[in-house]
Amino acid sequence: MRLVVVGAAGRMGRMLVKTIHETPGATLSGAIEHSGSIALGQDAGLLAGIGETGVKIVDDPLPVFAKAEGVLDFTTPEATSHFAELAAQARIVHVVGTTGLAQADMARLEAAARHAVVIQSGNMSLGVNLLAALARKVASTLGEEFDIEVVEMHHRNKVDAPSGTALLLGEAAAQGRGVPLADNSERGRDGVTGARKPGAIGFASLRGGTVIGEHSVIFAGPFERIVLSHMAEDRSLFSRGAVRAALWGKGKKPGLYSMADVLGLADI
Amino acid sequence: MRLVVVGAAGRMGRMLVKTIHETPGATLSGAIEHSGSIALGQDAGLLAGIGETGVKIVDDPLPVFAKAEGVLDFTTPEATSHFAELAAQARIVHVVGTTGLAQADMARLEAAARHAVVIQSGNMSLGVNLLAALARKVASTLGEEFDIEVVEMHHRNKVDAPSGTALLLGEAAAQGRGVPLADNSERGRDGVTGARKPGAIGFASLRGGTVIGEHSVIFAGPFERIVLSHMAEDRSLFSRGAVRAALWGKGKKPGLYSMADVLGLADI
Amino acid sequence: MRLVVVGAAGRMGRMLVKTIHETPGATLSGAIEHSGSIALGQDAGLLAGIGETGVKIVDDPLPVFAKAEGVLDFTTPEATSHFAELAAQARIVHVVGTTGLAQADMARLEAAARHAVVIQSGNMSLGVNLLAALARKVASTLGEEFDIEVVEMHHRNKVDAPSGTALLLGEAAAQGRGVPLADNSERGRDGVTGARKPGAIGFASLRGGTVIGEHSVIFAGPFERIVLSHMAEDRSLFSRGAVRAALWGKGKKPGLYSMADVLGLADI
Amino acid sequence: MRLVVVGAAGRMGRMLVKTIHETPGATLSGAIEHSGSIALGQDAGLLAGIGETGVKIVDDPLPVFAKAEGVLDFTTPEATSHFAELAAQARIVHVVGTTGLAQADMARLEAAARHAVVIQSGNMSLGVNLLAALARKVASTLGEEFDIEVVEMHHRNKVDAPSGTALLLGEAAAQGRGVPLADNSERGRDGVTGARKPGAIGFASLRGGTVIGEHSVIFAGPFERIVLSHMAEDRSLFSRGAVRAALWGKGKKPGLYSMADVLGLADI
Repeated sequence: MRLVVVGAAGRMGRMLVKTIHETPGATLSGAIEHSGSIALGQDAGLLAGIGETGVKIVDDPLPVFAKAEGVLDFTTPEATSHFAELAAQARIVHVVGTTGLAQADMARLEAAARHAVVIQSGNMSLGVNLLAALARKVASTLGEEFDIEVVEMHHRNKVDAPSGTALLLGEAAAQGRGVPLADNSERGRDGVTGARKPGAIGFASLRGGTVIGEHSVIFAGPFERIVLSHMAEDRSLFSRGAVRAALWGKGKKPGLYSMADVLGLADI
Repeated sequence: MRLVVVGAAGRMGRMLVKTIHETPGATLSGAIEHSGSIALGQDAGLLAGIGETGVKIVDDPLPVFAKAEGVLDFTTPEATSHFAELAAQARIVHVVGTTGLAQADMARLEAAARHAVVIQSGNMSLGVNLLAALARKVASTLGEEFDIEVVEMHHRNKVDAPSGTALLLGEAAAQGRGVPLADNSERGRDGVTGARKPGAIGFASLRGGTVIGEHSVIFAGPFERIVLSHMAEDRSLFSRGAVRAALWGKGKKPGLYSMADVLGLADI
Repeated sequence: MRLVVVGAAGRMGRMLVKTIHETPGATLSGAIEHSGSIALGQDAGLLAGIGETGVKIVDDPLPVFAKAEGVLDFTTPEATSHFAELAAQARIVHVVGTTGLAQADMARLEAAARHAVVIQSGNMSLGVNLLAALARKVASTLGEEFDIEVVEMHHRNKVDAPSGTALLLGEAAAQGRGVPLADNSERGRDGVTGARKPGAIGFASLRGGTVIGEHSVIFAGPFERIVLSHMAEDRSLFSRGAVRAALWGKGKKPGLYSMADVLGLADI
Repeated sequence: MRLVVVGAAGRMGRMLVKTIHETPGATLSGAIEHSGSIALGQDAGLLAGIGETGVKIVDDPLPVFAKAEGVLDFTTPEATSHFAELAAQARIVHVVGTTGLAQADMARLEAAARHAVVIQSGNMSLGVNLLAALARKVASTLGEEFDIEVVEMHHRNKVDAPSGTALLLGEAAAQGRGVPLADNSERGRDGVTGARKPGAIGFASLRGGTVIGEHSVIFAGPFERIVLSHMAEDRSLFSRGAVRAALWGKGKKPGLYSMADVLGLADI
């Protein structure tokens, strides 16, 4: 599958280039940067540390998309909206890992998804998406006699708590229970908190060192616990998930898909 | 739901009596022991340490089954075959936690299940059955780039390794992959083992102290891991699972069910 | 060693009676309750569920202490102050697991310790005291490039966070670093917290199910972590620690000792 | 501190160059390779991916050692013996991470250590050495009622089990108990093993994915467990430990030291 990387000179873009290089069945067919970028004209592979690929970074996506089958996009909401239109016109798979998408941005993706395959997720790692699906299923299976806790650990420089992924997991558990997360969270326990509220979903955040990201969803019931955990060992997880999504999307009918679709988790 | 406990004076029987006592919607309506038992005539509740219940232990199941809605049975294969017939005649739910059932015993349960609800499982804990269903699902979702390891810890007196439950979990994972476990196990690694065989399911057993039972199924892939764990905090888990199974079975149509059915896990 | 249990009819008192019964080298020689107790005159062993011991519960400690070698005391600060005087007069070992001792109470223990062996600790389990000693040592060994986090999990009915034991562990780590804990804690992280403060000791509390008590002290440094964990499987840990303390105290010279002394951890 | 890297073009050598570059107080003053190496004449920093350092790789250690204060050596036993002599003559710190040293090689290091500081260890990570010291201390503190288990996980390509580091940790625990490890190991449990042997130290090995290295030493006693764990997140741990050792060794009197000395763990 011939893939284009947009934002190819950025940290995530270079990781995408590298991952395509390492994935059987995937080839880098184009690399895009914005008009002013100093990376224009450079070899995308050299920049990514994998040696020369013959693919130069350019700023005009149109001819590049025309010869590709998919585009990997971890850029900005504005850029993504623009690429969505172009990808829809070219009828190629658009994998969107861009974060911070507002409702208007999502509407544009939906519009594009009438003509082409669009795959969007806030977290492209296989494991986290699988964990979310499992958490939803387990929460829907077990009653309120099982208390749900989400605990995560990240490096010392992370500035927000709980992590976005912890909230995503808590959201999945709340969906499983059929309740809104917002009304059922216990966050930042400290002091005399009283006993746990029935049905609450608790969050705890650990910070320290260089931990890339670890998440656990704990179901603590009467005399037994089930714990679903995910450990990320490398930041390349996101790029690997994106390439997998693209390969999956090839040949699918137009529509807006999630990583749960890619992984066959939608029906758990 | 009116429940009978067979083998009511044994360790598991007394735990069942206690659990019925603690479960809303369940009542002890009878308690059976074999003819020679010294417990005959005693109050089943007193024996179980929950105070007098008015239910005396007797040795004739027929009149007791006739007035009950379900029977909880952790006895022996022979006794279970006999009780299966009687429960089928009485059209009451038969929950079977008896271990060591041979194919002939299973055939008798199947025969009984044409007339009444029979629920049978080698492990009655909610958590372990749920873990097995999750392991099957995850194994079928992830490819062979994810290595599967099952690790368990039990108290110092356990004489076999891996635990039966570890093998049950490994079996579930093998089913998920569509391969036979027997041909794909790596057990007891020691010495120069060489690199891991693709597709292998590894087992490791820890022994020590008073650990009741902890199991983890690890899916170790490229730069990420998913770990599904279960911790048992108390041996009452089995009796709790059995009572839950009975309550679930009430009103179902005749058939042979598993804990996966009880938990709604059959379709994961 | 002949041991007296004070508060012998209470939950902890009965557990102490049972533990003495199970410990080679220890014998129950007396059992005390306050004057109005309905347990007076009853057999302490029967009350504890271990069968008749011949030791009746009485309310006058004087003659009982006179014939004993040690007293185990998990009562109230007031009662403990009184027992400390009597134990000092009788020159017998006084093991104090009473919590909530004020400075004045500690002063009375110190006075008593001029004449007899007094062993006092807020947590009598071997493991937690050992963990505290290890945490202190590790904190003094590693520099501030290792971030310290304390995480604990307890059952759903616990009303305060962090647990007293988590704070004890954090205190040990702070001592190891030579800083006051109060000025260096990060508790209840929630929202935009900013990056971790250098030198901070973080706390996180999980609540759910029936977990007796689990604590971890995490030292997260550049690309490696050391985690020191303790899991309690049974509430008898406190009584076991107390009996061990008494046996250790026999024959020692008068003084106020801690569980760290009992365990030989004072010099770590 | 001016440091020389020997074997500077190898995987470990380049990591050492990079770590020196990142460590305050350390400077790269020389880089050595064997005579036939194609890296001779190249800039050691460029090779290590940190940009030009002005330090060219050469094959004659003598003049390079003469201007240095320390040498970092992860090479071969033969090369290490040779460098030990030269370092002793130059009176500079020699940090030896070379593995597979025979008794004769150790004898040469001891001879060199009469004239200069030599620091040798089979594992240079801070955390693992600290864990070993803690395991020794805990094993000497706790009696045989606490069972010791060592469990480790490494990537799918590791060919031996248990890992060398697991054995190092087991050795430390055995020392703490004052027994030889060889006579007290339980490895590769599989089948009907019988109950755990009193005093045994158990080993279990997990293999899968890309796990760099995780080790736990479990002390499982009556109703409680203490677990000491180490997780490696990056292979740079070894180089970081080596540079720390060199900085520590500067100004010490001649002698053969271990990482336990460097870390102040020798007296735990």
